[in-house]
Amino acid sequence: MQHFIRINDVSTPDLRRTLEMAADLRRQREAGTPHVPVLEGKTLAMLLEKPSLRTRVSFEVAVRELGGSLISLRPDEVGLGQREPVADAARVLGGMVHGLIARVFEHEKLEQLAEHSGVPVINALSDRSHPCQALADAMTIIDEFGADVAGRTVVFIGDGNNVAHSLAAICARLGMRFILVSPEGFELPPAVFEDIHRHEPSAQLDLMPEPRRAVTEADVVYTDTWVSMGQEEEAAHRNAAFEGFQVNEALLQAAPAHAIVMHCMPAHRNSEITDAVIDGPRSRVIPQAHNRLHAQKGLLGVLYPGG
Amino acid sequence: MQHFIRINDVSTPDLRRTLEMAADLRRQREAGTPHVPVLEGKTLAMLLEKPSLRTRVSFEVAVRELGGSLISLRPDEVGLGQREPVADAARVLGGMVHGLIARVFEHEKLEQLAEHSGVPVINALSDRSHPCQALADAMTIIDEFGADVAGRTVVFIGDGNNVAHSLAAICARLGMRFILVSPEGFELPPAVFEDIHRHEPSAQLDLMPEPRRAVTEADVVYTDTWVSMGQEEEAAHRNAAFEGFQVNEALLQAAPAHAIVMHCMPAHRNSEITDAVIDGPRSRVIPQAHNRLHAQKGLLGVLYPGG
Amino acid sequence: MQHFIRINDVSTPDLRRTLEMAADLRRQREAGTPHVPVLEGKTLAMLLEKPSLRTRVSFEVAVRELGGSLISLRPDEVGLGQREPVADAARVLGGMVHGLIARVFEHEKLEQLAEHSGVPVINALSDRSHPCQALADAMTIIDEFGADVAGRTVVFIGDGNNVAHSLAAICARLGMRFILVSPEGFELPPAVFEDIHRHEPSAQLDLMPEPRRAVTEADVVYTDTWVSMGQEEEAAHRNAAFEGFQVNEALLQAAPAHAIVMHCMPAHRNSEITDAVIDGPRSRVIPQAHNRLHAQKGLLGVLYPGG
Repeated sequence: MQHFIRINDVSTPDLRRTLEMAADLRRQREAGTPHVPVLEGKTLAMLLEKPSLRTRVSFEVAVRELGGSLISLRPDEVGLGQREPVADAARVLGGMVHGLIARVFEHEKLEQLAEHSGVPVINALSDRSHPCQALADAMTIIDEFGADVAGRTVVFIGDGNNVAHSLAAICARLGMRFILVSPEGFELPPAVFEDIHRHEPSAQLDLMPEPRRAVTEADVVYTDTWVSMGQEEEAAHRNAAFEGFQVNEALLQAAPAHAIVMHCMPAHRNSEITDAVIDGPRSRVIPQAHNRLHAQKGLLGVLYPGG
Repeated sequence: MQHFIRINDVSTPDLRRTLEMAADLRRQREAGTPHVPVLEGKTLAMLLEKPSLRTRVSFEVAVRELGGSLISLRPDEVGLGQREPVADAARVLGGMVHGLIARVFEHEKLEQLAEHSGVPVINALSDRSHPCQALADAMTIIDEFGADVAGRTVVFIGDGNNVAHSLAAICARLGMRFILVSPEGFELPPAVFEDIHRHEPSAQLDLMPEPRRAVTEADVVYTDTWVSMGQEEEAAHRNAAFEGFQVNEALLQAAPAHAIVMHCMPAHRNSEITDAVIDGPRSRVIPQAHNRLHAQKGLLGVLYPGG
Repeated sequence: MQHFIRINDVSTPDLRRTLEMAADLRRQREAGTPHVPVLEGKTLAMLLEKPSLRTRVSFEVAVRELGGSLISLRPDEVGLGQREPVADAARVLGGMVHGLIARVFEHEKLEQLAEHSGVPVINALSDRSHPCQALADAMTIIDEFGADVAGRTVVFIGDGNNVAHSLAAICARLGMRFILVSPEGFELPPAVFEDIHRHEPSAQLDLMPEPRRAVTEADVVYTDTWVSMGQEEEAAHRNAAFEGFQVNEALLQAAPAHAIVMHCMPAHRNSEITDAVIDGPRSRVIPQAHNRLHAQKGLLGVLYPGG
């Protein structure tokens, strides 16, 4: 694996290796065993087109605990494609740092960084996908149900966004069924499912209109905010559209007793998810958030195998 | 000691240990002796709700010289209580980093971080208190008068602010008398002195209206800006109210010959303190500023004893 | 060498040593040989009065690969001369960090930092000069023509700015002729050439009005943006004034076949330089940009000789 930009571009064995290495490194951390410093002497740059708390902290800790250094660059420092073409910045940075982690508004910039920098590029969130979150999500599901998750069903209730996109793709890679439950007009574009099918012909991807019906089949009920950063002006409209799609205790009565609840955080409590659910016994949101750290470590371990 | 949020919550022996460790680490630094890297493998996050030069530099250097890493998060990355409840951010961060240093507008957030994060929390300035400054202040007074400072008198002239609050509390813990000299309406709230008395019944805390009278009893004359960050709009009003409270050479003629002058910096020269005084022979403001670094190292050494 | 603020203040032997150390460290990096960690245990602070991508990344990587730590401070954290006098900030910081790297709007602030901090000060760009860029430029020219560059001619076409200033000074130090080709009103102030002559009496510094004539004598054709950060409002006016000063293929037909093209980046493509030239066979802009990293490492190696 050379870059980590889309789940679709990563093979199932590479994903499996990443998830296993993540779990190994988590075990080492819990036991206080130092990691092999595979990033020793290496500096990575993180280009953040929008500020971020957990992306920044999870990557900074991951890189440092593997022995490397991370330079976090802020929106006004990055200027990708504004002060100069992405290709120019990529070529300049590629001679100075050993990898680029980027959070961008336009997914295409990731492809350009990968094409021109000559160093590994990691997608830390784009308008289209969030594959690092998907790694943490898969890790959390494996924590719950064991390594053989094939045949499990993940029901994503809410906005067909970048998180849903990457989650659908990783479900396909790992043999899980993915059901998207979105209000009309908020589904993932059909091209997303088509693309996953092209890469993983046996993918089981479904749309369902009705949350209560969908959760009866769920091993995992997943939701995310209805109003992402940058959509604040549409908040009233979006909140109205998503009425009836809240993950609450009434809805979960229709789910199997073993079904768990996930959310990639930050949560708008009592909007897409209620306090009772996010703080309740089915919730795995805190270990899921911590798995961002471990999953990204696993990813770095696979991208920098020789150290 | 588990957290460091208020001087009142720290026992006198813990304060003494912290100050002694700070002095030890300062001696090691001056001698070029490497410190025991008690923070090796540890990453702390610093949440800064307002930007800061000396808080950031002193903590970054302290953490790094003890072998650890520090992630400084800026206001637009922190969003404590805005993008998500403080408790949620605390629980997420607590699984990734080994400690939180926070500079907040609302003191309550520190208590919430301590309650939910599961890792040590350090108050790096709140609207109510500034205990790290108080550590540096106590260290500076001990540098001048020796470890046994009981019976010394600190006269704080100016605004009864967060710096005055923590200074009063540490004076009480160390047996020093604290005299606050503020214009009417700018004193510390009575609850502050009451609270210190509750924690340290022998505390000697006084209010005096008249600077010239107060400094006759001073071993230390302390002042701070009249216009803190965020109060710029009130500057004219505040400057008028504080007329007559400037620490200048005329005032210091009333002080004992051995009295020193302190200021937590940055200073508004020729406003609360004159050039002649801040640059004069009584001034200890530069070593006092440097003691922020050493005091915070001592604090980290006590909070992370086993490394 | 104690500080690195102006090329004029650095002796030719010190410049030569810096460039040689830079090339040594580059060779080590390419071979994967670890550097001697001369900055081990040292923390430097970088004060950035304007945000920067390549200055920040090149210095952060340079400091870290030499074993040190760098704290990058942003405009709203720095406040040099605003929240407090430069001298006060310098004295406070000087007791905490082992060096200051500063990017300032007013060159005088660098002199004040050097006077009051007690630690090495590096100019990372001022309104007047850019000596770190000049080091990288000299390194790139030596890469092309060998260590003995005396007698070579550098033709700078465009705005007589801070980059041109330091480039002229380093050409003088290394025995190269420097020709400035600027539209009327955009030349370097006469005092700049006079000052260089005072420090290096044999300096060959010329003004020429006509690009086509000038490049016939060039070993190096150098250009830089016509509209620097902060000049965006004058963009239309400036672009008009610089018409005819573009470095394009037609112009380069008048240059010797061996002449190379340099640019300190970021480039405004098809404004001061065309795509065909910047991406063409004469262009050295990417290795030149990477040399910022190596040159600054050489500089740090000379400023911190004993480690």
